[in-house]
Amino acid sequence: MSSPATPLLDTVNTPADLRQLQPDQLRQLADELRAETIAAVGVTGGHLGSGLGVVELTTAIHYVFDTPNDKLVWDVGHQCYPHKILTGRRDRIRTLRTGGGLSGFTKRAESEYDPFGAAHSSTSISAALGFAVANRMQDQPGKGIAVIGDGAMSAGMAYEAMNNAREAGNRLIVILNDNDMSIAPPVGGLSAYLARLVSSREFLGLRDLAKRLVRRLPRPLHNAARKTDEFARGMAMGGTLFEELGFYYVGPVDGHNLDQLIPVLENVRDAAEGPCLIHVVTQKGKGYAPAEAAADKYHGVQKFDVITGAQAKAPPGPPSYTNVFAQALIAEAQRDAKVCAITAAMPSGTGLDKFQAAFPDRTFDVGIAEQHAVTFAAGLAAQGMRPFCAIYSTFLQRAYDQVVHDVAIQNLPVRFAIDRAGLVGADGSTHAGSFDVTYLASLPNFVVMAAADEAELVNMVHTCAVHDSGPIAVRYPRGNGTGVAMPAIPERLEIGKGRIVREGRQVAILSLGTRLEEAMKAAEALEAKGLSTTIADLRFAKPLDEAMIRRLLTTHEVAVTIEEGAIGGLGAHVLTLASDLGLIDNGLKLRTMRLPDIFQDQDKPEKQYADARLDADAIVTTILTALRHNSANMGAEVRA
Amino acid sequence: MSSPATPLLDTVNTPADLRQLQPDQLRQLADELRAETIAAVGVTGGHLGSGLGVVELTTAIHYVFDTPNDKLVWDVGHQCYPHKILTGRRDRIRTLRTGGGLSGFTKRAESEYDPFGAAHSSTSISAALGFAVANRMQDQPGKGIAVIGDGAMSAGMAYEAMNNAREAGNRLIVILNDNDMSIAPPVGGLSAYLARLVSSREFLGLRDLAKRLVRRLPRPLHNAARKTDEFARGMAMGGTLFEELGFYYVGPVDGHNLDQLIPVLENVRDAAEGPCLIHVVTQKGKGYAPAEAAADKYHGVQKFDVITGAQAKAPPGPPSYTNVFAQALIAEAQRDAKVCAITAAMPSGTGLDKFQAAFPDRTFDVGIAEQHAVTFAAGLAAQGMRPFCAIYSTFLQRAYDQVVHDVAIQNLPVRFAIDRAGLVGADGSTHAGSFDVTYLASLPNFVVMAAADEAELVNMVHTCAVHDSGPIAVRYPRGNGTGVAMPAIPERLEIGKGRIVREGRQVAILSLGTRLEEAMKAAEALEAKGLSTTIADLRFAKPLDEAMIRRLLTTHEVAVTIEEGAIGGLGAHVLTLASDLGLIDNGLKLRTMRLPDIFQDQDKPEKQYADARLDADAIVTTILTALRHNSANMGAEVRA
Repeated sequence: MSSPATPLLDTVNTPADLRQLQPDQLRQLADELRAETIAAVGVTGGHLGSGLGVVELTTAIHYVFDTPNDKLVWDVGHQCYPHKILTGRRDRIRTLRTGGGLSGFTKRAESEYDPFGAAHSSTSISAALGFAVANRMQDQPGKGIAVIGDGAMSAGMAYEAMNNAREAGNRLIVILNDNDMSIAPPVGGLSAYLARLVSSREFLGLRDLAKRLVRRLPRPLHNAARKTDEFARGMAMGGTLFEELGFYYVGPVDGHNLDQLIPVLENVRDAAEGPCLIHVVTQKGKGYAPAEAAADKYHGVQKFDVITGAQAKAPPGPPSYTNVFAQALIAEAQRDAKVCAITAAMPSGTGLDKFQAAFPDRTFDVGIAEQHAVTFAAGLAAQGMRPFCAIYSTFLQRAYDQVVHDVAIQNLPVRFAIDRAGLVGADGSTHAGSFDVTYLASLPNFVVMAAADEAELVNMVHTCAVHDSGPIAVRYPRGNGTGVAMPAIPERLEIGKGRIVREGRQVAILSLGTRLEEAMKAAEALEAKGLSTTIADLRFAKPLDEAMIRRLLTTHEVAVTIEEGAIGGLGAHVLTLASDLGLIDNGLKLRTMRLPDIFQDQDKPEKQYADARLDADAIVTTILTALRHNSANMGAEVRA
Repeated sequence: MSSPATPLLDTVNTPADLRQLQPDQLRQLADELRAETIAAVGVTGGHLGSGLGVVELTTAIHYVFDTPNDKLVWDVGHQCYPHKILTGRRDRIRTLRTGGGLSGFTKRAESEYDPFGAAHSSTSISAALGFAVANRMQDQPGKGIAVIGDGAMSAGMAYEAMNNAREAGNRLIVILNDNDMSIAPPVGGLSAYLARLVSSREFLGLRDLAKRLVRRLPRPLHNAARKTDEFARGMAMGGTLFEELGFYYVGPVDGHNLDQLIPVLENVRDAAEGPCLIHVVTQKGKGYAPAEAAADKYHGVQKFDVITGAQAKAPPGPPSYTNVFAQALIAEAQRDAKVCAITAAMPSGTGLDKFQAAFPDRTFDVGIAEQHAVTFAAGLAAQGMRPFCAIYSTFLQRAYDQVVHDVAIQNLPVRFAIDRAGLVGADGSTHAGSFDVTYLASLPNFVVMAAADEAELVNMVHTCAVHDSGPIAVRYPRGNGTGVAMPAIPERLEIGKGRIVREGRQVAILSLGTRLEEAMKAAEALEAKGLSTTIADLRFAKPLDEAMIRRLLTTHEVAVTIEEGAIGGLGAHVLTLASDLGLIDNGLKLRTMRLPDIFQDQDKPEKQYADARLDADAIVTTILTALRHNSANMGAEVRA
């Protein structure tokens, strides 16, 4: 069942092959494409529902447009598996999201059919506008085509781009893929508006279309440009919001009906003026009953059985950090009526769906709107609430200015629960949480913590809840905890104080976050080599535990810091402290272990951390190398 | 003339006093408030036009609403001088933007009437929504009132907030202050839409209003809640875009006519449902002829003569970095048709107004939309253009995720021209460019430069233009250059190579950016004390000049880094390199001089840098202290 019969799809390696088909063959092709998508994701796991929803749209776009010369930009990119199958990557489609395999998102390095990579939402209109304008400026043909979901439309940058769309004239086409579902059901005024648009009118009918298909008439009979423009105007019925921003609005169109999609796309392609927004209605998970029935559960899936839809279960083990956070926050909210929580369209991913079930009136899903989420939280905090902003590390980047300007400068006690800190496995470089310690610990007023295990996370959530004097953040990784005993009553940690996990004499490992397990393994290996090893869990990247660090650095022969983050974070802060204190003046064997200066592709997390040289083996090597290092020789080398 | 006659204003110290006045006294009060605002800014300089445009609005809001219990959030905050005069700060209004004086923006620490500080645009709706929701959750009275300009409405976060406005019910009131002018004329679809709204209908007339003033009738006669709701609905005429997002739209209203403003605000205040958006039309600079005539020139002013409007001229001297950048970019564009430029609503501040005059077709003002600006540039770069994004350091924070996700990960050659790097003087902490080196130099693929003087800036702009292999940034400060000779032909700098400015033997100063002047002064002072001093202008924060740094650190007795940025930047990178190379193992007297771990208030830039301990005197002190520091003693202290 991992390779369904696909006789027609087998003849299509690239969109050029597709464009050789007759229109009446496309239905069969789409069916085969859907079957192949289901089969492939059954093997690999990954994003299923989004891709199934755009099988017909993918087919129609590549049939109508001149890809790769027309630049097709998939927003977010998690709906791109059918696109990858049609654009020369079918032979590798069962390597999706694995080390060395295809990315689960669009990626420029992978194919000329991926002109702009994505993974974070709502970038597609800006990018497509860039392509369109660049082509105009260079007198090159080619359009920019953005395919963006209704959920992604709630993000500010999509609006910023729409507000500038007129720059592109008719070279910009925005296809709004409205499935009333981003990952969770979308929220807010725009969503309600789209629902009204769809419910207030029927899909464009075939007869209606046939009457209007000006371009199918022999062109010499017409002033084609003028007519197609009129056609485009004629189809703009409703959609005032988009029209007010300068688009021709066309829709709604049934996104699973190729007989409608193809002529609409052809006409928009040939329209003389623009930009144009096509409102396409699709069903997430279309054509696969288990996914249709539970669109959220089939957004991202484990490997599954294609017949039954049963997903492979994660092996039993310690709870995920996400769940531990959710339960800890619920406990805080039970104690304190001022605790509330904010998510930017990720209730399930952040665990806030559980919080919402317990405290619906204290949970705010603001849509894909991280900027608003943070400043809204700042407003709540300024008026006495205790808001937790639960945002993945990589997505918090989108609210960086709000973190600085609205939270840090005003010293408002917004609590940041930063999930997916560090490397994240199959989602790859776009989702890695590499930079948060660097960009947060440099801010005055901030307290920045990282949990070493799930018990620490519980204590840190509590510490956040009771910390009213300014902003505070706790970061924790994707995946499961270590199985440690959980505290019966959470402990309020003293701000800026680390803990000694293991006491030794020669080697000091200063750990921040969940590399602590690897540090423990490294210590065992070092002890076996006769090196007595201390391990500190610093807990705080800011403020640093100055007394502890001073003691460790001055009483051990060698020290390393280790963190799941890029340069500029813990290691840089410890080095800066050591320099400020003059500890380096008379010699200090101190090394900083951190993420390397590259964007790492998807792989198993353990493999990623091994590649990053952040595992136990690398710790041992770093320490032994440092101990052997003779800086007198090094100086000689330099002079030589 | 610095203190006009203001008999009525003299009786008003707080809004409570204002609310004792009769409605027919408000016109006089507003006139006096306007005169006082003009007189004060004549003395201090600052933002003039924005405040003059909202004199009546400020008066009316404080008259109608229960400030400070109702939370009034001024977007950006540069229109807040009349507000400050009315809220207990008149006695200090002539200290605006000076050290120890009033901030030029709203500021929580300054007054309970400033519930949420601002300075960056478009945060007000999110914050006001936070206040409104927090009050609802805590069963407290009080509304959230955001006053936001039409330009600020182009930013994505304003849209994100509007999309969530329904959370607040009738506790949220958004006042759209439409003066068809942010700093420069606003751009894009939304702006055109607002212009159509205003031009397509007359202002709400007095007779029209009188007919509808339900609340003025004796309340017992009515189901007041229902009626005022109907009233609000009745006034919603047009404004579909806002209505589709869930607002009641009221307007347009003449923002200088108190007889209209007061009843409209009263009715919206008492409306049973919400949220409500009031579209108020004002004139920037209203009531001061020179400012009315040239709204952009009077957005921010030097001290000026109130009678003539003549602004104090800056003393003659070297050109500003902004101008040098603009001329350098024009020169690049003359050589290369692919060079183009993008600004986010700051053509004048960035110097791109000059570029636009020379190359209108290659200049893109995208509105207050930094996120879109960066990803649009990434799209342009992906299609072969050579885009320069000219964005202030502090505002680039708003596009941080786009810098990471769309530019750095894809390694696209977007050029970033980062003006206002480092401390900025009168604009204070919200405008300081403190973090860009930290948040950019931690990103793989990035090249990060800082110009030490205006000749270096010319070379760096050229280096950006010809660097096609990935993202590259150059930062430079507010203010004027040093007067160095300018290169006849710009030099292409070798990536990652610094320059030795002065060669010595004992002390090494590793400088990044325009602290070089202070480093030179410090070197003179050190030589006078018999300390032979080397100065390196590192030019690149990333990649570092490893060979040069290694040589300097291993051949001098003491070294300092100095930069105009926060922890995590140059100093942290140099320390990390020294640690990676093992240079610290046998002793290294290395200190990092950087911005302190506080947000510094407004003051003269020289004073700010002296306070930050980043001037020549501080360099000398740091070096002498380091030389005297005896780490053997230090170790003894620790053990004692």
